Amino acid sequence: MGEFELIRRHFQRAKSGPAVALGIGDDCALLTPSPGHQLAISSDMLVEGHHFFPDVDPQALGHKALAVNLSDLAAMGARPLGFTLALALPQADDGWLHAFSDGLLALADDHGCPLVGGDTTRGPLNLCITVFGEVTPGHALRRDAARAGDELWLSGRTGEARLALERLRGTAWALAAPNDEDLCRQRLERPAPRLALGQALAGVAHAALDLSDGLAGDLGHILTASGVGAEIDLAALPVAPALQPLADADRLECLLNGGDDYELLFTAPASARDHILRAGTASATPVQRIGCITAEAGLRLLGPDGRMRPMSARSYDHFA
Amino acid sequence: MGEFELIRRHFQRAKSGPAVALGIGDDCALLTPSPGHQLAISSDMLVEGHHFFPDVDPQALGHKALAVNLSDLAAMGARPLGFTLALALPQADDGWLHAFSDGLLALADDHGCPLVGGDTTRGPLNLCITVFGEVTPGHALRRDAARAGDELWLSGRTGEARLALERLRGTAWALAAPNDEDLCRQRLERPAPRLALGQALAGVAHAALDLSDGLAGDLGHILTASGVGAEIDLAALPVAPALQPLADADRLECLLNGGDDYELLFTAPASARDHILRAGTASATPVQRIGCITAEAGLRLLGPDGRMRPMSARSYDHFA
Repeated sequence: MGEFELIRRHFQRAKSGPAVALGIGDDCALLTPSPGHQLAISSDMLVEGHHFFPDVDPQALGHKALAVNLSDLAAMGARPLGFTLALALPQADDGWLHAFSDGLLALADDHGCPLVGGDTTRGPLNLCITVFGEVTPGHALRRDAARAGDELWLSGRTGEARLALERLRGTAWALAAPNDEDLCRQRLERPAPRLALGQALAGVAHAALDLSDGLAGDLGHILTASGVGAEIDLAALPVAPALQPLADADRLECLLNGGDDYELLFTAPASARDHILRAGTASATPVQRIGCITAEAGLRLLGPDGRMRPMSARSYDHFA
Repeated sequence: MGEFELIRRHFQRAKSGPAVALGIGDDCALLTPSPGHQLAISSDMLVEGHHFFPDVDPQALGHKALAVNLSDLAAMGARPLGFTLALALPQADDGWLHAFSDGLLALADDHGCPLVGGDTTRGPLNLCITVFGEVTPGHALRRDAARAGDELWLSGRTGEARLALERLRGTAWALAAPNDEDLCRQRLERPAPRLALGQALAGVAHAALDLSDGLAGDLGHILTASGVGAEIDLAALPVAPALQPLADADRLECLLNGGDDYELLFTAPASARDHILRAGTASATPVQRIGCITAEAGLRLLGPDGRMRPMSARSYDHFA
């Protein structure tokens, strides 16, 4: 199977998106965004042994590779237009490619985000997806737009992906607790990008981002970019059933420093509360107020004992 | 040096482009294309050991990684708006990154194509650049737009990059011929994307592509997509001084199957001849008529003996 046959067999589809003027097969793809819109662009690279295990289910990998990019569009409040895929493969394995493209393109179809081009080459397994969306100028949810007095909101809940990862790693505390393994694995391997919620928040919420490296560390990016601080009410954090049996410290680690959550963390004025609750209902996405933005810098946690404690924000760093 | 410090130190610049509403540092970059334009997108992945040697000059690598993508925009007739870079690195080597980003961003500055976002991670060395440009609807130079009767044009000349590559590989015929080594290495390692010419041809030429895998094979893509054939007049092909001493067969191999040329191959009606010559002059890019497009399928070569010979189009395939 040659390069062009590989692309034709696994990645080329008859159906496309309304914005796609020219898809796979030319020097460039051509997209026609809606008049008067800005283009939102995000790119993520996934490397075997770093972002996924060598024996990962290729269908789940296809899903996740696109999901983490769509999650960036969601965090901006953008509507997907299409994506490119660059793929380095050790060899052209037909079964692997079939499953991978199946997971990838099923999610693309779900969100009307067609594959419009890319590159395939030989090399150590590496996937780079770049995704394109559109947003009304001035409506994008930026990291630098949080204001003191904003309420802090979270979609869904955090920590299950981390628990699943720790179980795969064989970590004692994760293995000891009985838990809903399937659901946690699902959260780790098949995150659902919060696109409908993100679009409903565009122009309403102030700042937003998607949680990839952990709630506390990612919140730190909003605080730094916006020049503000925050308080998180620990009692307000949604806790998944799988996390209930954990010791307090392990549960907090999952909730606040979990990673791979792909939920939206956003800030909004109190006046937007009703709009946000309706957006959550309309997009079938749970939303929860978990704290507030403060003029005072730093991140503080309000414990169940009613005491406020400072917390140092940590975030995953590939080179630290 | 952590991930964010690495990005800040080597890739973040104060200056940006007029289309960039939001650059590096958020979930997405935001671009504002000119009203009424289409977006042209291309993505290329370069892998160590496949696309470049492990001891490559990192400054040249930075240049080439962006150049091959800009060349795709040129082949579409598009004007650059910006690009993303996803980079997997075995380690964060400050000297390497300094040289790499220097080569990369110097070319970006030359063409007003700012880095707007991307990703950095650990892994076997791999670079994926996705580039964005804009073009007037209906003016893009597509592969499927060649028509019987069109003239076939080439920018610059082909073969020097291949000669340089064969010398690096230690191939006897390449080492035997005296040649202008510096110029050939320059052609291999620092291709100049033909952006000004491509934009001047938009709306004038019919079909176009950029030569990455060799003239004959790449021309085959136009012929297949357009459902036409072509004749190449070998006597019309520009021959670089470095290729003159080669045996006929080796010279033809470089000219027709060279690869890494990053010249534009395009077709246009005879009525566009003056416009094309002026476009070449205005963009300081040599342009040469090298043949014609025919209704009869297949690729034929008109030899210096006046005889027409059929040629099987070959093209480099990463998986064949």
